[in-house]
Amino acid sequence: MPDEMQRALIQRGGETGGCRPLGACMSELDTQVVGILGTGDFSRSLARRLVASGYQVVVGSRTPKRSVALFPEEAEVTSQLEAASQADIVFVAIFPEHHSTLLELKPALAGKILVDVSNGLQIKQGGPSYAEQLAGMFPESFIVKGFNTISAWVLQTGPRDGSRQVFLCSDSSKAKSSVLAMCHRMGFRPVDMGLLSSSVEIENLPFYLFPSWGTPILVSAILFIFFYLYNFVRDVLHPFVMAKKSVFYKMPIETVNVTLPSVALVMLALVYMPGLLAALLQLRRGTKYDRFPDWLAKWLVKRKQFGLCSFLCAAMHAIYSLCLPMRQSARFKLLNAAFKQVKEGVEDSWSDEGVWRMELYVSVGIIALGLLSLLAITSLPSVADNINWREFNFVQSTLGYCALSMATVHTLLFGWDRAFDPGQYRFLLPPTFLVVLILPVTVLMVRLIFLLPCIADQLRKIRRGWEKSRHIRFVLPSDNCYNGIDNISHV
Amino acid sequence: MPDEMQRALIQRGGETGGCRPLGACMSELDTQVVGILGTGDFSRSLARRLVASGYQVVVGSRTPKRSVALFPEEAEVTSQLEAASQADIVFVAIFPEHHSTLLELKPALAGKILVDVSNGLQIKQGGPSYAEQLAGMFPESFIVKGFNTISAWVLQTGPRDGSRQVFLCSDSSKAKSSVLAMCHRMGFRPVDMGLLSSSVEIENLPFYLFPSWGTPILVSAILFIFFYLYNFVRDVLHPFVMAKKSVFYKMPIETVNVTLPSVALVMLALVYMPGLLAALLQLRRGTKYDRFPDWLAKWLVKRKQFGLCSFLCAAMHAIYSLCLPMRQSARFKLLNAAFKQVKEGVEDSWSDEGVWRMELYVSVGIIALGLLSLLAITSLPSVADNINWREFNFVQSTLGYCALSMATVHTLLFGWDRAFDPGQYRFLLPPTFLVVLILPVTVLMVRLIFLLPCIADQLRKIRRGWEKSRHIRFVLPSDNCYNGIDNISHV
Amino acid sequence: MPDEMQRALIQRGGETGGCRPLGACMSELDTQVVGILGTGDFSRSLARRLVASGYQVVVGSRTPKRSVALFPEEAEVTSQLEAASQADIVFVAIFPEHHSTLLELKPALAGKILVDVSNGLQIKQGGPSYAEQLAGMFPESFIVKGFNTISAWVLQTGPRDGSRQVFLCSDSSKAKSSVLAMCHRMGFRPVDMGLLSSSVEIENLPFYLFPSWGTPILVSAILFIFFYLYNFVRDVLHPFVMAKKSVFYKMPIETVNVTLPSVALVMLALVYMPGLLAALLQLRRGTKYDRFPDWLAKWLVKRKQFGLCSFLCAAMHAIYSLCLPMRQSARFKLLNAAFKQVKEGVEDSWSDEGVWRMELYVSVGIIALGLLSLLAITSLPSVADNINWREFNFVQSTLGYCALSMATVHTLLFGWDRAFDPGQYRFLLPPTFLVVLILPVTVLMVRLIFLLPCIADQLRKIRRGWEKSRHIRFVLPSDNCYNGIDNISHV
Repeated sequence: MPDEMQRALIQRGGETGGCRPLGACMSELDTQVVGILGTGDFSRSLARRLVASGYQVVVGSRTPKRSVALFPEEAEVTSQLEAASQADIVFVAIFPEHHSTLLELKPALAGKILVDVSNGLQIKQGGPSYAEQLAGMFPESFIVKGFNTISAWVLQTGPRDGSRQVFLCSDSSKAKSSVLAMCHRMGFRPVDMGLLSSSVEIENLPFYLFPSWGTPILVSAILFIFFYLYNFVRDVLHPFVMAKKSVFYKMPIETVNVTLPSVALVMLALVYMPGLLAALLQLRRGTKYDRFPDWLAKWLVKRKQFGLCSFLCAAMHAIYSLCLPMRQSARFKLLNAAFKQVKEGVEDSWSDEGVWRMELYVSVGIIALGLLSLLAITSLPSVADNINWREFNFVQSTLGYCALSMATVHTLLFGWDRAFDPGQYRFLLPPTFLVVLILPVTVLMVRLIFLLPCIADQLRKIRRGWEKSRHIRFVLPSDNCYNGIDNISHV
Repeated sequence: MPDEMQRALIQRGGETGGCRPLGACMSELDTQVVGILGTGDFSRSLARRLVASGYQVVVGSRTPKRSVALFPEEAEVTSQLEAASQADIVFVAIFPEHHSTLLELKPALAGKILVDVSNGLQIKQGGPSYAEQLAGMFPESFIVKGFNTISAWVLQTGPRDGSRQVFLCSDSSKAKSSVLAMCHRMGFRPVDMGLLSSSVEIENLPFYLFPSWGTPILVSAILFIFFYLYNFVRDVLHPFVMAKKSVFYKMPIETVNVTLPSVALVMLALVYMPGLLAALLQLRRGTKYDRFPDWLAKWLVKRKQFGLCSFLCAAMHAIYSLCLPMRQSARFKLLNAAFKQVKEGVEDSWSDEGVWRMELYVSVGIIALGLLSLLAITSLPSVADNINWREFNFVQSTLGYCALSMATVHTLLFGWDRAFDPGQYRFLLPPTFLVVLILPVTVLMVRLIFLLPCIADQLRKIRRGWEKSRHIRFVLPSDNCYNGIDNISHV
Repeated sequence: MPDEMQRALIQRGGETGGCRPLGACMSELDTQVVGILGTGDFSRSLARRLVASGYQVVVGSRTPKRSVALFPEEAEVTSQLEAASQADIVFVAIFPEHHSTLLELKPALAGKILVDVSNGLQIKQGGPSYAEQLAGMFPESFIVKGFNTISAWVLQTGPRDGSRQVFLCSDSSKAKSSVLAMCHRMGFRPVDMGLLSSSVEIENLPFYLFPSWGTPILVSAILFIFFYLYNFVRDVLHPFVMAKKSVFYKMPIETVNVTLPSVALVMLALVYMPGLLAALLQLRRGTKYDRFPDWLAKWLVKRKQFGLCSFLCAAMHAIYSLCLPMRQSARFKLLNAAFKQVKEGVEDSWSDEGVWRMELYVSVGIIALGLLSLLAITSLPSVADNINWREFNFVQSTLGYCALSMATVHTLLFGWDRAFDPGQYRFLLPPTFLVVLILPVTVLMVRLIFLLPCIADQLRKIRRGWEKSRHIRFVLPSDNCYNGIDNISHV
C-alpha cells in the first residue's frame, strides 16, 4: 500500500506544507513515526505490532521512567508532549473519560492525525460518539476512529484468529488514507466506513452478537418448540393416555427427528415467501419504486440466514434418521417382530407398498439435502465472492426452488395416503406432515401462478422500471434486459 | 484507499493541470463530486450507494423536475449539461442505444472520467464493445468500463449477497485508479482487467453461468446414465427376465447407490489422467515449452471441477449407503432371513469371509471419503488462498493419489473374488466394479511407472527447462530446484 | 491500485527527479516498462503474465537472437544492458549463484527497482538471504524480494489454483509500493512483509509444509495409537486369551470407532487446557505482562488446529457409527439373536434401561457434533474474517465449552454404570471411557472453579492490566471493560 507516498502529501496539506523539496521529503519517509498516548494493555500490544511492522514508535506516558520497562526496546518512551510533537499519526489509547487531560497537548497535536481507539461500556443509541467528542476538543487535528474492534491479543499475536477487519471513519479522507495504508502494512484489512458520523456505529460494533441471526434463530426455536409439543402429544402422549403404552423413550430421538424436518421445511418456505410478497406488492402498486414495509425489507435481507437455519435442521434430520437403525430400540423391535413372524408362521412379510413408499421418500430426501448443501456452500463468503450475479441467482433461485419442491415431494411421499386415514387424527390433530405442508405448498402454488405469462410479463415490466401511474416517462426497448439479469426471486 | 490523493493528480493530468497550489487542492478534495447521467433504476440505486459512501452526487436528467423525487435528498438533480460540468467522474447509466444523445455534452465531458455501466442482451462474440463505442464518441474523455456486473439490488442493500467484485478496465490507468479507489470506498472489491479491449469480456461476464463447470458436469451426467443403465440391466432386468423376480424397488436407491461410486471413481481417475498425459507428451517431445493440444490444456485447468464432481458423488454414495439399513426392504429381508434360519434350525449363520470383506471395504471407503473431504475443503477459495504452493501440491497431488488408491482398494475389496465367479457375468456383462476399475488402475500403474528413477529423472530435467533439441543452451546446477517446487502432478 | 501515480513520484525520488513537468510525466505512464533478466522457465511465464496485464516487457538475454522465439511477440527481447536501461522495474530471474554476472549492469540498474525472485534449495537458518546479497551488490538500486512463492504454472494460467498471495519485502517502501501495485494489476494479492530483513523468511516460505499442523497431528497420532492398542487389548485380545473367542474382525471398524471418539474428546480438552493454564499462571504471578513459557505460548496459538483435529475425529466417529448397522457382522448377530429368542421363547426382549441409555447418548452425541461443526465452520478463513471479536469469542469460548460439556455427557451416558462393573476391568484395565474422561472432566472442573466470583474478579482485574506488585500505578474505573471484550478463554 502506498503509505509513504501519501504521507508526504498529507503532511504538506496538514502542516501548511513547508518548502521542503519533494525529493528530500521522500527519502526520510521510510520510517514513519507513530505516537501512542497511554501505557495500558492496548498501548503495549499496539506498540509491539507497530514495531514489528517497521514503524518507529514513540510512546507518550505521564511517567515515562516507570513505563519504559513495559514496552519493546525499539519503542521510545517519553513524555506525552514529546511524543505528540515527534509523531505524525498519534494513537489516543487512554480511557475516553480522560480525553480531556490531553487538552494541554493541543498545540502539539494541531495538524496531526489522531486515531481514537476507545470503546464504550454498552451500545450507544444517540449522542456524540467518543471520537466526535475528541474531534470537538481538537478541531485542528484530523480525527480517525478505528482499531477499537481489534483486541490487544490480536495485536500481539498478529491478525490470525478472529477478524482482521479494521473499521475506519474520518471526516478527513487524507487522514483516513494514511491510517488505511498503515492498517494494510500491519496486516489488517481496513474497511472504510465513511465520515466521522459513522463512529457511533463503529463504537457499537464490538457489542453486536450476530445481529442478523436473531430473528431467524428465534423463528426456528419457536417452530421447533411448537412442532416438538405437537409431535409429543400425538406420538407419545396419545398412546400413553389411550392405551397406557409408555413410549417416552421416543422423546430424545424419534420425536426430535419428526420435529427437525418440519422446522427445516417451514423455514425453507419462509426463505421464498418474502420474495413472493414483494412481487405481489409490486404488482398491486404497479411500481417498484415505493418502499417495502419495514418488516418485509428486513425479512428480505435475512433470507440467507433463514436458509442456513433450514439447512442446519435438514442436516441434523439426516443424521438423526441415519442413527435410527443402530439404536437398541430398533434392535429390540426387530427381534420381537422376528419372534412374532416365526410364531405366526408367516414365511414372507414383504409389503410392496411399504417398500416403495420408503425407497422413494428416502431417495427424494437425499436429493433435497444435496441441493440444500449446494445452496449452503454457495453462501460461504469466499465462494459467494467468486460467482457472478447470474450464477448467484441461478443457485439461490432456481436450485433453491428445486430444493423446496424436492423437500415438499419428500414430505408428500412420506405422508403417502395417511392424510385420509382417520386413525392418524389422534386427539383430532391432523398428522404433522399435513400441518407442515401448508406453507411450502402455498409458496410453490403462488410461484407457479407468477409463471403465468400475463403476470410474469407485468412483473417483468415493473422490475425494469415501468410504473403504472407515470408510464409516459419511460419507453423501454422491447425485451431489453437492463443490467443483464432480472432478480426475479430476490425482490 | 488513497482516493483523494490520486484525484488531485488526475485532475491535474486530465484538466491540463491549472495552477492551483497543492495545499488548496487538498482541502477541497474530501467531498468528491460524482455525476450520474440517466434516471433509471440503476441510477437511483447507484446514487443512494454513492451518497451513503460520502460522495457528493449530481444526477443529470432530461427532465430534472420530474426526476427529483426519485433520488435521495442529498443528491442534486439537475440538467445533463450541469451534471457533466460539475462532476469529475461521470457514470453513464443510460441504454447503450441512446449513448449518441450525449454527444451534445462532449465539451463538458472532455477530460472527465466516464464510467460505462451498460450491458448487452446476449453474449457478444466480436465487434466493438459498448464501452469502445463510447470511447469512439468521446475521444477526449477517459472511458472506464465497469459496474455492469453489479445489480441495482446489490447497490441498494450494500454488497452482502452475491459477488462484491467489480471488474474494471480502461486505457487510462489514471482514470482506472480513481474508479478503483471509488469501488473500495463503496465497499466493493475492484478487479483490474487491464485495457479497454477487455471490455467485451466484461460485458459478457453477466451472461456466464458456471462456464468452467460445463464439461465436468456433462461428463458426470454421461457416466451416471451409462452406469445406471448398466446396473439396471444387470441387477433389475436380469432377475426379472431370467427368474421373473420383480425387484424394481431397487431403482430409486440401490441402483443409484451402485452407480454413484462408479461415477465418483472414474471422475477421480479423470482428475489425474491429464497430468499423466501431459507428462507423456513432454517426455516424447523432450521439452516443456511446446504448447499442449487445446483439449489437454482445457482439461488441465478443469481438474478441480472434475475432482469436486467426484467428491459430490462419493458423498452422496456415503449417504445412500448409510440409508440402506433403515429401509423397509432391509427390514423385511432381515425378518424373512430370521424366519428361514429358524425353520432350518441354523443356530449360527456367521460367515467369516462375508464379515471380513465388508468390514474391510467399509473401513477403507471411509478413509477414502475422509481424504476426498480434505481435498474438497482445500478447494474452497479462502482456504486455497492461505496455503503455499508446496502445501497445495501436497494436498492435491500426494493426498489426491492416496485418495485414488484408497478408493481403488475399496472397490477391489468390494469386488473380492467375484470377478472369477461366472454367475456374476449376467447377460455376459462383467460386474460393474470391473468396468469401473479400468481407468483408475491404469492411472495408478502409469503413475508408478513414472516413479521409476530413469523416467522420473528425465521428466525432472524437462520440467526444469532442459530441452532435448537445444540442450546446449541451458546448464543446470546439479539437483537444483528452481523456484523451490516442481509441480509434478500439475503439468 | 494506483500504480502509475506512485511511479511518477518514485521515479522522481529515485532518479533525483528530473525537471519534467508533472503533466507530461502522467501521460506516458500508462504503459509501464518492466524488464526481466533471464530467459528460464519463470522468465517466460512472467513475461506472458506481464504482457497480459498490459505492461510493456523488455527481456534481457545474453543471447537475445536465440531466446526471442521463447517469449510472446509483444515482449521485446534484447541484450541485458539494453533491458536494464529501458525498464523502471527489473525482475532478476536468474539463479542466485549467477547474480554476480550482473555486476556489469550496475550503472544501468542504479536507481531502478530490482525484484529478486530467487529461491534456495532448502530452509536457511542464518546468513544473508539471496535478496540481501543482491542488495549488497547493488547498493544504488532498490531491492524488493518477492514472487518466489509463485510458480511458473500459476503465472501462466493466472492466479486460480493455489495461493494468489505474493509476499513482498523491501527496505524502500517506495519501491515496495510500486511492486505491490504491480501485483494487484497482475491479479495477485500482495502481502507486505516489512523490511528486507524478512527476505530470509520469504525465501523459506516455499519449504513450509503446514508448519502449524505438525504438533496437533503428532499428538492426535500418538493418542490414536495409544487408544487403539488399549482397546485392542481390552476388546479383541482379552476374549481371545480368556475365552479363545476370535473377534479379530472388530479391528477395522469397531476398535477404530471406539478409538476415534477417545482421541476427539481428549483433543477437545487439550484445546481448552492451555487457556486455563495461562489463567492459573496469571493468577499466581498476579500480572498479565510476564511472558508465558514458550511451550504454553506455542500451545495457545495452535488451539484452532487442535480443535480441527478433534472435529475431524468426531466426524469420522459419526460416520463409522452410522456404518455399524449395515455391516454383515451386525446382520449375522441379529439373525442369531432372533434364533436364540425364538428357541428360548422370549416374546418381548425389550430392556428399558438399554433403550434409554442409547437414545440419550446418541442424542447428546449428535448435538455435540452439531456444535463442533459450527466451530469448524467458523474456523474457515472467509467466515472468521466476517465476524467480530465478540462473536468469535462467543463461538470459540461459549459454544466450544458447550461442545466439550456435551461430548463429556455423551461419554458419561455411554459409560452409564459400567465404571462400577468389575467385569469391565479386563486385564485390570479400566473401561476406555474412564481413561478418556480424566482430562475433559478436569478441564471442566477448573473452568467452573474459575467462575467463582472471588477468582473471576481477581482474574478480570489482572486481565485489565492490574498488577499485584505495582498496583499503585494503575487506577481503573470500576467495572470498566477496556476495549469492550475480555478475552477470558483466549489468554
